[in-house]
Amino acid sequence: MKALIISYNNFEDSELLYPLYRLIEEGFSVDIASLKRDKIKGKHGYVIEANLSVEEVRPEVYDLLILPGGKAPEALRKNEGVLKIVQTFYESGKIIGAICHGPQILISAGILKGKRATSYKSVAKEILEASAIYEDKAVVIDGNIITSRSPLDLPYFMKTILELWKATPK
Amino acid sequence: MKALIISYNNFEDSELLYPLYRLIEEGFSVDIASLKRDKIKGKHGYVIEANLSVEEVRPEVYDLLILPGGKAPEALRKNEGVLKIVQTFYESGKIIGAICHGPQILISAGILKGKRATSYKSVAKEILEASAIYEDKAVVIDGNIITSRSPLDLPYFMKTILELWKATPK
Repeated sequence: MKALIISYNNFEDSELLYPLYRLIEEGFSVDIASLKRDKIKGKHGYVIEANLSVEEVRPEVYDLLILPGGKAPEALRKNEGVLKIVQTFYESGKIIGAICHGPQILISAGILKGKRATSYKSVAKEILEASAIYEDKAVVIDGNIITSRSPLDLPYFMKTILELWKATPK
Repeated sequence: MKALIISYNNFEDSELLYPLYRLIEEGFSVDIASLKRDKIKGKHGYVIEANLSVEEVRPEVYDLLILPGGKAPEALRKNEGVLKIVQTFYESGKIIGAICHGPQILISAGILKGKRATSYKSVAKEILEASAIYEDKAVVIDGNIITSRSPLDLPYFMKTILELWKATPK
């Protein structure tokens, strides 16, 4: 049981910490990847060690991927390596959870076309422009893509991700 | 399923948010009590609505109590109403979880004598002075009292609390 979180400086702290701790609680080993191996700092000042650079990520070893929000996705969506990882998770049918501004990375990875999704409200327009269907709900599931709107949705976001993961044939 | 969190300004943000969201994820309805009904602000700037004052708390309606850390416990431990609530939970055998500086409230409530407990390391001396046994572990369980040391212990803290709660005859 191995999970990957991809984030960067100015992440929304609770959107990284809640999934991180929740996955550890469930028995996952969790890697945190960023543009380089380094400490990354959240908007609220929490500092997290990214133990992998994006180049070092081997998507095949993970069960699921989490993309927290904040300002981090704005930087991450410009990185080809990040988009390639997301596409690989998507194509292999593995669970991808993106919250708040996290869905911006899904848009840039080109995997939202025709899909139902949610996000932080300011990202809704971009979701529509990506030919996806925006739904204003705590959690939206479409295939292996799970999206949520904001920190207040975290309990429902992680509950859904873990339920789907448990229901996935291993 | 109803849980109570007691906290105040300068709480350690993740130590309030992780239990709050985790309990909601589990299906609990969660009340947050403080010295008065008001918004309280964490050390990292998260703002949480305390929907009850300490005077309004009716301990009998809750299944369990969580005491997050940060600087909040320093203020809360001086309040007789808070100590009374903690004593009532203790005497009725309900689960009390305290993390980081949270155990300071248990000390002031006089319920740690002869008990095994842990806390943030700077509180260890006080725990010993309260005639309790300090253990440097992620989670220490003694009867209905569950204690942990710091935010990094949150996954183990909540896992233990929820496991004990599930094992409690209802």
